[in-house]
Amino acid sequence: MAEKHRLDHAPFIVPPGKKIKLVDYDPGYTAGFASKKEAKEALLEDVTELAVAQELIWASGQYAVLLIFQALDAAGKDGTIKHVMSGVNPQGVDVTSFRAPTDEERKHHFLMRPMRKLPEHGRIAIFNRSYYEEVLVVRVHPNFLYSQWRPQRLHNASLDKVWRARYQEINEFETMVSHMDTLVLKFFLNVSKEEQRQRFLDRLNDPAKQWKFAVGDYHERQYWDEYQQAYEEMLRATSTETAPWYVIPADHKWFMRACVADIITARIQELHLPLPVVSEEKMAELTAVKQQIEAEAEM
Amino acid sequence: MAEKHRLDHAPFIVPPGKKIKLVDYDPGYTAGFASKKEAKEALLEDVTELAVAQELIWASGQYAVLLIFQALDAAGKDGTIKHVMSGVNPQGVDVTSFRAPTDEERKHHFLMRPMRKLPEHGRIAIFNRSYYEEVLVVRVHPNFLYSQWRPQRLHNASLDKVWRARYQEINEFETMVSHMDTLVLKFFLNVSKEEQRQRFLDRLNDPAKQWKFAVGDYHERQYWDEYQQAYEEMLRATSTETAPWYVIPADHKWFMRACVADIITARIQELHLPLPVVSEEKMAELTAVKQQIEAEAEM
Repeated sequence: MAEKHRLDHAPFIVPPGKKIKLVDYDPGYTAGFASKKEAKEALLEDVTELAVAQELIWASGQYAVLLIFQALDAAGKDGTIKHVMSGVNPQGVDVTSFRAPTDEERKHHFLMRPMRKLPEHGRIAIFNRSYYEEVLVVRVHPNFLYSQWRPQRLHNASLDKVWRARYQEINEFETMVSHMDTLVLKFFLNVSKEEQRQRFLDRLNDPAKQWKFAVGDYHERQYWDEYQQAYEEMLRATSTETAPWYVIPADHKWFMRACVADIITARIQELHLPLPVVSEEKMAELTAVKQQIEAEAEM
Repeated sequence: MAEKHRLDHAPFIVPPGKKIKLVDYDPGYTAGFASKKEAKEALLEDVTELAVAQELIWASGQYAVLLIFQALDAAGKDGTIKHVMSGVNPQGVDVTSFRAPTDEERKHHFLMRPMRKLPEHGRIAIFNRSYYEEVLVVRVHPNFLYSQWRPQRLHNASLDKVWRARYQEINEFETMVSHMDTLVLKFFLNVSKEEQRQRFLDRLNDPAKQWKFAVGDYHERQYWDEYQQAYEEMLRATSTETAPWYVIPADHKWFMRACVADIITARIQELHLPLPVVSEEKMAELTAVKQQIEAEAEM
């Protein structure tokens, strides 16, 4: 068997403070692999390693992991989350879907929703969409702002100032979260306009999927350029050392899934969490228990 | 390929109102299958079917499913839940672990905890342990009662009356839940005392597992007979038509997992949920969207 290796993450990361352009990230990139089969042969078995990494997180009880997934429709968020989950113990993971905020949620600051859903230490939280919608869908449709509570200082501010304030608040929030020993990883699943078109058509042509097709998703496609701009500015403003953004090529589902699993695994491994140690006192207890259990058989 | 079939569930169900004896349920039962391989060849691919069943639950938006798992230590709750989860979309499932109640929870009625965690319609909730601990661990160690809020009428009641009141309250609660179109399925994973002994020894002998071994679990083993009695009386008192108990043979993990997946799948299929229908109006909308998307290519 050929030696297995990790992916180079440089093509995906958004360097903090750099004015990246989204067109420089190719949605069809596959790191030179021609197929799923070829990638499987060359890459580490990431979901297996991810399970080991999760166990270390849990055993340490010291760290938590927050995974954020953002994407346009049909990019493959649900399938990617399912793939990540397939490798881990589902009882150590909580998935939160951020749908449109409720009346109650709209009366709070928009960062109150994620605050309530932060992972306990030892656990992984996955956000399927997130508070970033507040600078994405709300930016593309700013009329949503009028039904939301906002800080006093922004009541008469320009829209541009509102978005800049939100970027800043998000960065402050994520700094606080990372100080809570929570690893924050953010993934933008980057699908091309033509691939989204194909996937929409596939759904429309498949009788088993027609009932799930939301016509509203197609309407959002009319705002493609506005979304690209909103994503680009968000990526520039909120990719930080402690909470970086990764732009994941999403036109090939098999590559997207391998790529996300590889990044999560590598970043947890970089924490260098120690294998749990059994103290001398505990080992003495375990030995005593073992003797008692073995003795049972002779009774 | 031989024709695949379902398991006969009669050996597992606890008939409502019947004074069953736990010794009549064999923890080593495997329905005549000699091995995992043989069972796989003969049984339906349950986790695949379970995924289809879950999709119907979600599409209907009308029903919910509540799965309760109870067992003594090392019976295999976590592994069984992981197996069930492997077949479904994790975003449609919420797993709640019932650890010892917090100070706040102990000030409420013991049924307030599950009330807060009931599944939304369209979703599946899994309880890893549950409110049944209130008639199991609390029954074996009744001193836990003294730190709990209890209804006024039970302040001076005998312990026997307390357990009977709790059985009744649980049955009332589950009746209410089933009236909310929630399918309630309860699984007692029935491990033998000798198999538990073997699994404890395996854990104690495996350096990778020693750190997780809770000496407290071994102490509970000393109360084996008390737990068997508590389980038996609970099964007799709370297996109902609407929320039946299944006693699952747990000495062979492969059989336990196949058995639980088979029962869940069969019970959801019995709801005869219709495949989602696309209305004429929606179909007209979809056709219009399709024409627009196809036209894009020509622009």
